[in-house]
Amino acid sequence: MLRPFHSATKDFASSRDTPSAFLERCLKAIAEREPEIGAFVAMNVEGAREAAARSTARWQAGKPLSSIDGMPVGIKDIYETVDMPAQMGSPIFAGWQSNRDSAAVAALREAGAVVLGKTVTTEFAATFPAGTRNPHDLSRTPGGSSSGSGAAVGAGFLPAALGTQVVGSIIRPASFCGTFGFKPSIGALNRGGSHDALSQSSAGVLAASLEDAWNFCRAIADRAGGDPGYPGLAGSAGVPYAKRPSTLAVLETDGWATASDEAKTNFENAVARFRAADITILEGSNNGLVAEVEAAFKDAQPLSRRINGWEVRWPLNTYAAHHREGLSKHMLERLTAAEAMSLDDYRRDIAKRARIRAAYAQLAGLADGAITLSAAGAAPIGLSSTGDPTFAVPGSLLGVPAITLPVLACEGLPLGLQILGFEQQDDALFSIAAFMRDLGWDA
Amino acid sequence: MLRPFHSATKDFASSRDTPSAFLERCLKAIAEREPEIGAFVAMNVEGAREAAARSTARWQAGKPLSSIDGMPVGIKDIYETVDMPAQMGSPIFAGWQSNRDSAAVAALREAGAVVLGKTVTTEFAATFPAGTRNPHDLSRTPGGSSSGSGAAVGAGFLPAALGTQVVGSIIRPASFCGTFGFKPSIGALNRGGSHDALSQSSAGVLAASLEDAWNFCRAIADRAGGDPGYPGLAGSAGVPYAKRPSTLAVLETDGWATASDEAKTNFENAVARFRAADITILEGSNNGLVAEVEAAFKDAQPLSRRINGWEVRWPLNTYAAHHREGLSKHMLERLTAAEAMSLDDYRRDIAKRARIRAAYAQLAGLADGAITLSAAGAAPIGLSSTGDPTFAVPGSLLGVPAITLPVLACEGLPLGLQILGFEQQDDALFSIAAFMRDLGWDA
Repeated sequence: MLRPFHSATKDFASSRDTPSAFLERCLKAIAEREPEIGAFVAMNVEGAREAAARSTARWQAGKPLSSIDGMPVGIKDIYETVDMPAQMGSPIFAGWQSNRDSAAVAALREAGAVVLGKTVTTEFAATFPAGTRNPHDLSRTPGGSSSGSGAAVGAGFLPAALGTQVVGSIIRPASFCGTFGFKPSIGALNRGGSHDALSQSSAGVLAASLEDAWNFCRAIADRAGGDPGYPGLAGSAGVPYAKRPSTLAVLETDGWATASDEAKTNFENAVARFRAADITILEGSNNGLVAEVEAAFKDAQPLSRRINGWEVRWPLNTYAAHHREGLSKHMLERLTAAEAMSLDDYRRDIAKRARIRAAYAQLAGLADGAITLSAAGAAPIGLSSTGDPTFAVPGSLLGVPAITLPVLACEGLPLGLQILGFEQQDDALFSIAAFMRDLGWDA
Repeated sequence: MLRPFHSATKDFASSRDTPSAFLERCLKAIAEREPEIGAFVAMNVEGAREAAARSTARWQAGKPLSSIDGMPVGIKDIYETVDMPAQMGSPIFAGWQSNRDSAAVAALREAGAVVLGKTVTTEFAATFPAGTRNPHDLSRTPGGSSSGSGAAVGAGFLPAALGTQVVGSIIRPASFCGTFGFKPSIGALNRGGSHDALSQSSAGVLAASLEDAWNFCRAIADRAGGDPGYPGLAGSAGVPYAKRPSTLAVLETDGWATASDEAKTNFENAVARFRAADITILEGSNNGLVAEVEAAFKDAQPLSRRINGWEVRWPLNTYAAHHREGLSKHMLERLTAAEAMSLDDYRRDIAKRARIRAAYAQLAGLADGAITLSAAGAAPIGLSSTGDPTFAVPGSLLGVPAITLPVLACEGLPLGLQILGFEQQDDALFSIAAFMRDLGWDA
């Protein structure tokens, strides 16, 4: 991966490094490997060079706009940007330009970030892939739906890229591509101008470091807030410091049955290291509340799929009516499933989700957070699927913050360790993540 | 006003009346008065005639799609429609076509409704007016921001039109134009493809009857649900029956100080009628909880303005950066005010709103609903302002359902009586409204 941006900024004031030089290093890496990876759908190199030059001048004048002033960033192609199309992985939106920035992009620009390009998304941020390859093994998927954001950061093209997650779209590609990934609490980052607007979906980031992830999200929340009605990303301006958690809950979830033996062993080794670091570990086998939460998660994925399905009935219905040829077979099947649901079915499903959230919230009295795998193993071979999202479902369904740390391995490829926090306690989750990262890992 | 649609449907099966004939009566009224009123920004008469013919055939075959099959409807121009532009009262969106239907419009079409035209909105559903005139006195405003929806229903052009309210945009134009108006509970009707997406804003309807209002909203909720994560409009399929409330709270709110003497007198006469109908009336002067709620509402309007202001920082910031000449002076001032706010200010304001909501929710233990005026008096003279929304602010801030009944008068012009309910109890509010309507009124 690239040198994290936050460590480079130390050299910007003295001009030992500059935002312009940082950008050129990104462009060099892109020139070398983008043809084989395919992380981007659109780029604005000229605009990025101009923005980097302005940022260089600000740092040299001692007046950066923020801690991410000059950071080259990628934007998942589900967001509107004034200078590039928003095509959403769908031929229906081929070349579509809204002539405005989405809320997060406007905020990133206000903070001085350098918007370099739009990164590949699966069709409407769902499951139909678009050909991006995993930078660690070109025969494998980068994961999805934030496929291009994961590949771009994993390949060292960018220090951070905007993503969204409604099922597993940040945690999974970050795990497969070996990046840090952060899916904030529900509503923490304003989704205005993003076309991923389901009740569980959340804007977030894939990044080269925890610091870059935090600074990126903090810059958005301070300028654009959260979704309307939400208090916005919890925490103060600085990067949360590392803090040892006293207790963690291990949650196997439905994913455990799908995990490879190597992934399970490596996760168990990680748990042993946490125990050795004097962290109390609660598990379903020895703690009734954890067992209750595990039981509540049973069949979380079909529940999540039904909720999301009802919520995408629109706009799929109007696309099917007027642009049917532009929808994948998969999307048409999703619409058929949604049209078989009633409002009453949906009410029952969100009531069930509310009960699962209530069960999990009880854990906050016992544990500082929960840990699990980020994926069942390394990225699977092949580009026709973005892999199994099961391990990311609980965090999405709960609406709680989730971080994946690129500290495990499987088949010699990246595998993430996932930490789940509690709603509106995103900064506390970063403190735990920083402590874990600092333990030192081989991966 | 027009014959309400629900009463016409009784004659559709026997062909004494037909959806096509109903539409032609609407078109005749439009031909006569639209040139002086200006309720529409776009119409699709040919498409409407075709849709009405299909509906006529369904009714004659005894197979209507819903209780609003064949209902000619107007769509506030803040919503996307596949066959007409969505211009949002802004030159920035002049001629803009999204090539898709918004969620509510797709649902209305699925239910067989006849989408006749787009109705005038103020600039981005805020306050800058667009010249529509009040059908009851052409020298006066129809109110806003759902100006065209109010004028079209008030003039007898349509039995129902889609509106949105974030401050007073349904209740106020309905009061000024003499129509029924319904702002549902927060999140009750899916706002996908509507560009009025603030945390207090709600889709709703202006209609020729309570039945038309209910059937219109029920048809949307059953097919498109509520906003993602919300259970959708409460209540069952049929129109809620009239039911005498046992207790009502009178809330004067900040609006009382602005109300005309005639408006106050007519409201007090209405309260006397409710007392005579054996309804217990609670007031701040004789009930501590009502006094507490009145106190909580103090300065509700500036609070609401700050919350909305922060939430429209985007997209106003990207419009100002790239299409500055297309924003009214008023919008630029709003952006300046928003940019002077911080996320911390916003958090304080939504916490204050949450406290007001909690205070009001306590009322549910004492009263079946609350009543107040819908506006300070008749529509004011002049077209440069859409009038004072103060009376509609509490319902918007609270996120509770509100209905305005066109049963009062002032200066010989319409004035609404407003009823506020409790969140997710929209059907109970309709029952109260039907009881009140059936008392018989002179207005």
